[in-house]
Amino acid sequence: MSHEKGPDHSRRKERSRQAILAATRALVTEEAYEKVTLEAIAARAGVGKQTIYRRWPSKSAVVFAALLALSEDADGQSVALPDTGDLEADLKLVMRATAEEFTDPSFDRLIRALNTEIANDAALAIEYREKLAQPLEEAKKVRLRSAQKVGQLDADADLDLVLEVLYAPLFQRWLHRSGPLTATYADSLVDVTLRAFGKTA
Amino acid sequence: MSHEKGPDHSRRKERSRQAILAATRALVTEEAYEKVTLEAIAARAGVGKQTIYRRWPSKSAVVFAALLALSEDADGQSVALPDTGDLEADLKLVMRATAEEFTDPSFDRLIRALNTEIANDAALAIEYREKLAQPLEEAKKVRLRSAQKVGQLDADADLDLVLEVLYAPLFQRWLHRSGPLTATYADSLVDVTLRAFGKTA
Repeated sequence: MSHEKGPDHSRRKERSRQAILAATRALVTEEAYEKVTLEAIAARAGVGKQTIYRRWPSKSAVVFAALLALSEDADGQSVALPDTGDLEADLKLVMRATAEEFTDPSFDRLIRALNTEIANDAALAIEYREKLAQPLEEAKKVRLRSAQKVGQLDADADLDLVLEVLYAPLFQRWLHRSGPLTATYADSLVDVTLRAFGKTA
Repeated sequence: MSHEKGPDHSRRKERSRQAILAATRALVTEEAYEKVTLEAIAARAGVGKQTIYRRWPSKSAVVFAALLALSEDADGQSVALPDTGDLEADLKLVMRATAEEFTDPSFDRLIRALNTEIANDAALAIEYREKLAQPLEEAKKVRLRSAQKVGQLDADADLDLVLEVLYAPLFQRWLHRSGPLTATYADSLVDVTLRAFGKTA
C-alpha cells in the first residue's frame, strides 16, 4: 500500500500533529500540569495514544513541542524589538508588555509547565535554550547593539548580563509570586539596567 | 491509655518526624524528584505511610517541611551577612559562596524540587516566602541598610529591587542552566548592582 505514504498520508499526519499540539496547549492551559495526561491529550485531539507515542517519548516532549510550535507559527516576525532610536522608551514598551504577558492566566500555566520541565530535565533545558531562548535573546541583542552604536549603552557591556539584569528579576518575581508585576516595576527594571550599563557621557 | 500521650509519646513522635524529614532530604537528593514517592520515604524512615499522611497531606508538603527544618536547625545564625564595612567585598564573598552552593549537586536537586513545588502551588509559594525567603531577605537588608548609612548605597534605593538585581540573574541562570556560575560571574553581579544602586559621590 505505497499510496499510504503519498501526499494524503502526509497531510493527515500533519493534521494529527497539529491537533495533538493544540490539544496539549489547551489542556495545559486549563488544568494543573500534573493532572494533564497523554490519555487526555489523545482524547482531546481525537487520536490514539499510540499516535502520540510514535512521535514523542513523554508528556514533557509533547508539551515542549506544543510550545515550540507557537514560535514557529510566529515565523520570527514578532520577535524583533522596536527601534525608535530611544532605547529607554523602547525597552519600557517591551518590559511593560512582558509584565502584562506574565500576568495573563493562560500564559501563566503554559510557562509554569515549561519551566517545571526544563528545571528538571537538563537535556530539555539545552533544547529550550537552543530553539526558543537563544533566538529570542539574539533578537533582543540586535536592539542592544544598535543602542551601543549610538552611544546609549556601554560599548563593552556584556549583552548576556544586560538581558539577565533586565529580565531575570521579573522572571523570578513571577515564578515565586514574590511581588506585583506592574508597569511601574517594568519601568524600574529598565531604569536599573540603564544605570548599570547606560552610557554616562 | 492516657500514658500514650506522655513525654515518651512526644519523644517518639519527634523522632519519627525527624526520621521522615531526613529520609525525604536524602531521597530528594539521590533521585529524580518525580520518582520520589511517599512509600519510599516511609520505607527509608522506617515508619508506615499513614504516619506521614497523619501529618502532611502530600509529597509537596513533606518536601517543603524537610527544607524548612534545615533552616530551623541553623537557628538563624548562618543567615547574617558579613559586615566588614566594605560593601563590595562583603557582597562578593556572599555571591561567590552562593554561586558555589548552587553548583553543589545535592543542593541542586533539593532546590530544583522546591522550585518545582512552589512554581506550581500558589499556597506553598506564599508559605515559602513567609517562612524561608523573607527571613533570609531581611538578613540581607540589614547589611544593605548598614551600607546606606555609610553612603555606600543610595539612601533611597528600593532594597527589594537591589536584592532581585543581585540574585535573580544567578537564580535564572542556574534554573535554566543558561551559563556558568563562576566566581567571575558572581563578582560581575555585585559590580552591576553597585553601578545601579551605589553611591556615586
